Amino acid sequence: VASLAALLDEICAMTAAETDRGQVSHAIAALAEQSDRRFAIAVATLDGETLSAGDAGMPFSIQSVSKILTLAMALGRIGDQLWSRVGREPSGSPFNSIVQLEHERGIPRNPFINAGALVTTDVVLAGGEPREAIGALLRFARMLAASDDIFIDANVARSEAQSSDRNRALAHYLKAFGNLDNEVERVLGVYHHQCALAMNCRQLARAGLFLCLGGRIPGSAAPIISPSRVRRINALMMTCGLYDGSGDFAFRVGLPAKSGIGGAIVAIVPGRAAIAVWSPGLNPHGNSVLGIRALEHLAQRMNWNVFATDTLDRT
Amino acid sequence: VASLAALLDEICAMTAAETDRGQVSHAIAALAEQSDRRFAIAVATLDGETLSAGDAGMPFSIQSVSKILTLAMALGRIGDQLWSRVGREPSGSPFNSIVQLEHERGIPRNPFINAGALVTTDVVLAGGEPREAIGALLRFARMLAASDDIFIDANVARSEAQSSDRNRALAHYLKAFGNLDNEVERVLGVYHHQCALAMNCRQLARAGLFLCLGGRIPGSAAPIISPSRVRRINALMMTCGLYDGSGDFAFRVGLPAKSGIGGAIVAIVPGRAAIAVWSPGLNPHGNSVLGIRALEHLAQRMNWNVFATDTLDRT
Amino acid sequence: VASLAALLDEICAMTAAETDRGQVSHAIAALAEQSDRRFAIAVATLDGETLSAGDAGMPFSIQSVSKILTLAMALGRIGDQLWSRVGREPSGSPFNSIVQLEHERGIPRNPFINAGALVTTDVVLAGGEPREAIGALLRFARMLAASDDIFIDANVARSEAQSSDRNRALAHYLKAFGNLDNEVERVLGVYHHQCALAMNCRQLARAGLFLCLGGRIPGSAAPIISPSRVRRINALMMTCGLYDGSGDFAFRVGLPAKSGIGGAIVAIVPGRAAIAVWSPGLNPHGNSVLGIRALEHLAQRMNWNVFATDTLDRT
Amino acid sequence: VASLAALLDEICAMTAAETDRGQVSHAIAALAEQSDRRFAIAVATLDGETLSAGDAGMPFSIQSVSKILTLAMALGRIGDQLWSRVGREPSGSPFNSIVQLEHERGIPRNPFINAGALVTTDVVLAGGEPREAIGALLRFARMLAASDDIFIDANVARSEAQSSDRNRALAHYLKAFGNLDNEVERVLGVYHHQCALAMNCRQLARAGLFLCLGGRIPGSAAPIISPSRVRRINALMMTCGLYDGSGDFAFRVGLPAKSGIGGAIVAIVPGRAAIAVWSPGLNPHGNSVLGIRALEHLAQRMNWNVFATDTLDRT
Repeated sequence: VASLAALLDEICAMTAAETDRGQVSHAIAALAEQSDRRFAIAVATLDGETLSAGDAGMPFSIQSVSKILTLAMALGRIGDQLWSRVGREPSGSPFNSIVQLEHERGIPRNPFINAGALVTTDVVLAGGEPREAIGALLRFARMLAASDDIFIDANVARSEAQSSDRNRALAHYLKAFGNLDNEVERVLGVYHHQCALAMNCRQLARAGLFLCLGGRIPGSAAPIISPSRVRRINALMMTCGLYDGSGDFAFRVGLPAKSGIGGAIVAIVPGRAAIAVWSPGLNPHGNSVLGIRALEHLAQRMNWNVFATDTLDRT
Repeated sequence: VASLAALLDEICAMTAAETDRGQVSHAIAALAEQSDRRFAIAVATLDGETLSAGDAGMPFSIQSVSKILTLAMALGRIGDQLWSRVGREPSGSPFNSIVQLEHERGIPRNPFINAGALVTTDVVLAGGEPREAIGALLRFARMLAASDDIFIDANVARSEAQSSDRNRALAHYLKAFGNLDNEVERVLGVYHHQCALAMNCRQLARAGLFLCLGGRIPGSAAPIISPSRVRRINALMMTCGLYDGSGDFAFRVGLPAKSGIGGAIVAIVPGRAAIAVWSPGLNPHGNSVLGIRALEHLAQRMNWNVFATDTLDRT
Repeated sequence: VASLAALLDEICAMTAAETDRGQVSHAIAALAEQSDRRFAIAVATLDGETLSAGDAGMPFSIQSVSKILTLAMALGRIGDQLWSRVGREPSGSPFNSIVQLEHERGIPRNPFINAGALVTTDVVLAGGEPREAIGALLRFARMLAASDDIFIDANVARSEAQSSDRNRALAHYLKAFGNLDNEVERVLGVYHHQCALAMNCRQLARAGLFLCLGGRIPGSAAPIISPSRVRRINALMMTCGLYDGSGDFAFRVGLPAKSGIGGAIVAIVPGRAAIAVWSPGLNPHGNSVLGIRALEHLAQRMNWNVFATDTLDRT
Repeated sequence: VASLAALLDEICAMTAAETDRGQVSHAIAALAEQSDRRFAIAVATLDGETLSAGDAGMPFSIQSVSKILTLAMALGRIGDQLWSRVGREPSGSPFNSIVQLEHERGIPRNPFINAGALVTTDVVLAGGEPREAIGALLRFARMLAASDDIFIDANVARSEAQSSDRNRALAHYLKAFGNLDNEVERVLGVYHHQCALAMNCRQLARAGLFLCLGGRIPGSAAPIISPSRVRRINALMMTCGLYDGSGDFAFRVGLPAKSGIGGAIVAIVPGRAAIAVWSPGLNPHGNSVLGIRALEHLAQRMNWNVFATDTLDRT
């Protein structure tokens, strides 16, 4: 653990020196204000400890990382029926593409592209009030991270709502194919707030632990979701978690992960640890440039890679 | 091991009773002759043992499973320069699609779709004679499987050559974008023979072991490829190995794997074992129906899943 | 003229006997109620006469035929600036496709597909009140047809609004690319009413006369739009007026035309006559089956074809 | 006629002063050598006269303009059966795109994109020898133009053959879908030679006359193809003749036309005249920049436009 702490500091120093830091997203006004100098990394281990370096106490909107939470909640509500409404395949297209939706008649390729997350949000909303769904999501995030400090960033939520035409188009398109039960504006209301879920890196790493530990939260007795479902969420993160950069990330890092355009990435080391990184500069696929580089370095040094084959690695 | 042997028999019995067996490929005449009653499964473990059930001694053409071998050989020849000529992302499209190639100017999405494998074959050929490249490939396969019985099925190779218009179109398209160095007919000559590489399930399972063991062949001292390269090949198999059925396979089985339209699938349990299945009936994505079902069953019962998170699983 | 009247009766009798009548559109509820037995045809000539046969006094919603009127009005308002916001090419795709819009960053291929007509409607609305734009459109239609009986079918307009998710998706998508100035709901409000513009075949034929006569309305002195603009609208109708069935229509009939999913088609014989047909059964491209057949017959018998080359034809 | 001669000179002077001259094609080496200073225009009238200006005696390869000849010959051979193998719709895609062919299972959208012309060439070849088909094509061109000087430019044909990978890909793709009867190399052999058909502008204008005159050649008694077929070829030229620039050309010029990447365009004024222009600089759609501009000017001044509506225009 001493060496892990030192490694995180080393990674932090390494990223500070990087000149190629990507582009901060201008998709919404509230994100455009972020500085590309920001960097944070945190690792939560199974024994309850969380190590971190950089701006690890600074909250940020987790954006599409929240799609993991909505997926888990949607599966909790309707189970495998979900898969009649959303696929499990990489799309081969950008996160906000509408092309595939036309060709495949309103069934999004997977729950981690925007169209798919609108469907899981629709399932979570389930005819109820948007504020209730948002509340349930916030409670779920707080429980996972064991922290009451997690909040919805109202400024970000407002900004999302002001730049939502493309997501609104996706939602109406889903509706046109009968794949949205609630009213579009109500689904978007929830969607904008879940994107605005604000955490710091330490909280986000802890929130990922349930995916490392068979669905259990450290300290709790019963799993909140079944081990087999956890494996499947991890599998989806591996093949689809970084949009059309997922293959490259699997190749370079070898861990299930989910990114957001705010610059966050959460990565899972099954049976070991959860990692969160945050740095707002993005590559053309919408994934944090320094985040990926940090994860690549950390995973390599710790030999954390689900495809690692040395028996020595496993002891 | 006793229980594993029993489990393979159980799986064999289970699949015999299945009525939904998929469609045998009619892409080439030699495959269309295969019976959908065929089924074999084999598991090669790190201690050198190979267990099997069903038609495990019956050779079949491994078809696209050979794309793993060509990739390994191409990486051995030019290393990471390969990635300037072929990508590492799932394509979201069928295995023989030419659409993405037009949109992305002749760079195939990954080395496991046909267009990508034509590029790795071109690298392996490297200006030499097709028969030398075929010979090298055959020697490589025999070394991996520790068996001299492996052969090129001349009937299948001939049949490939007779039904190769779509691959020939892909090859000329690559050529048009400057992404094929050798003459099209020479590349296809090698390609048809590698598709016709004939093994039985026991041999194919053993041939997969180098991907379980950091690039080492059981009994040999030095790795034939580096551990980090092995992880990366496994990662590519996870995200792209079953074409546009890769995401679903990762979700259901959770192991890196590669399929072929002859009905073979090889799957890797990193640090543990290699599995080969064969059954000619395919689903619409071109992957063996009973093969996937058998792997799903086996992986679940053995708790073989790279996304498994129970600490108990790992002991 | 006597022979033209007889020809229209003959065509009417011919279509009555047809068994392959296409499918009535179920895109909106109000259209689904229409009978596929309906058929009407009318020809308005330059001397002010209108001949007709069949259900020629029965009003129907002209649906996408109204896109001609909106285009003419949009050109009247901003002239050739329009062409920076909408293209002039056939799309090669269905009328309500969103795919091309993603690939070409929010610029619809032409003003006769739905996305393009949303842009022309946006131009016509121009920051004003929807009811004013609707009023202006209605006045324009009445002036063109020289008939005050033309009305907006409120039942159809309501039905449009209830089945508008796909158009709403298109509109939000245009908005996301900055190609819609007014609020989506206000644009759709006008769009739904223009689709619901109700005319009978005699009125519709007369309304087409301005495209036969250099932009003049019979009896009026000055053209309402310039002759060169009329030619260009006719050219757009020829290449794009029947969606992805335009090429086949040009091949078979050889006249500029515009169809609607209510089953109407208006066709222009430059310098001669305007033709309207109506029959609700559609082909898979969304064009009236009997309407096309009737136009083909009429055009052939009258030698009305802009590609006709016999000098005798021209006397 | 005096004024037409003056107009051609005026156009020639106008184009000489143009600075935006497009890009000479580098698709094949023989074309890349052409100077973008070249310009020629010729008009052949029904009374047998041919007026011209610029480099009107300089031969050039007509490239895709030859697709008209192949289409006429293919229709002569198998009539409307052709339309089961090739469509009649604009593709909405570039001339050498393969995308649509995959989506529509080997049926090219129209006979004027490369894939479609390979099909018409296959029909013309009809199991015979390539040199016979080439000879028949050459004789047809000479008869149409009433000139024995027309030849196949061997240098161009060779150059075509050296840069034919993309067309070869298209041909194999057609073959894969069963839409090519002859061997790919034999079809390409003819295709390359027809692209290399060399004419000057005066010859090319005269060769277009049969499409102005109901299929008759000036001076001959019987039509070589029927008037109805002529109209249909003209219709296809209008909707598809300039690839994905056809809609814009119809809008600006209003005449059926066919372009080639050598810089030639032939345009038809039904019942009046045939026009040929040549200037090697192309726009991004592959159509001659100065050629389009010259045709636009000429058509406007002569009021030659099939969509013209003034009754005065027609006298």
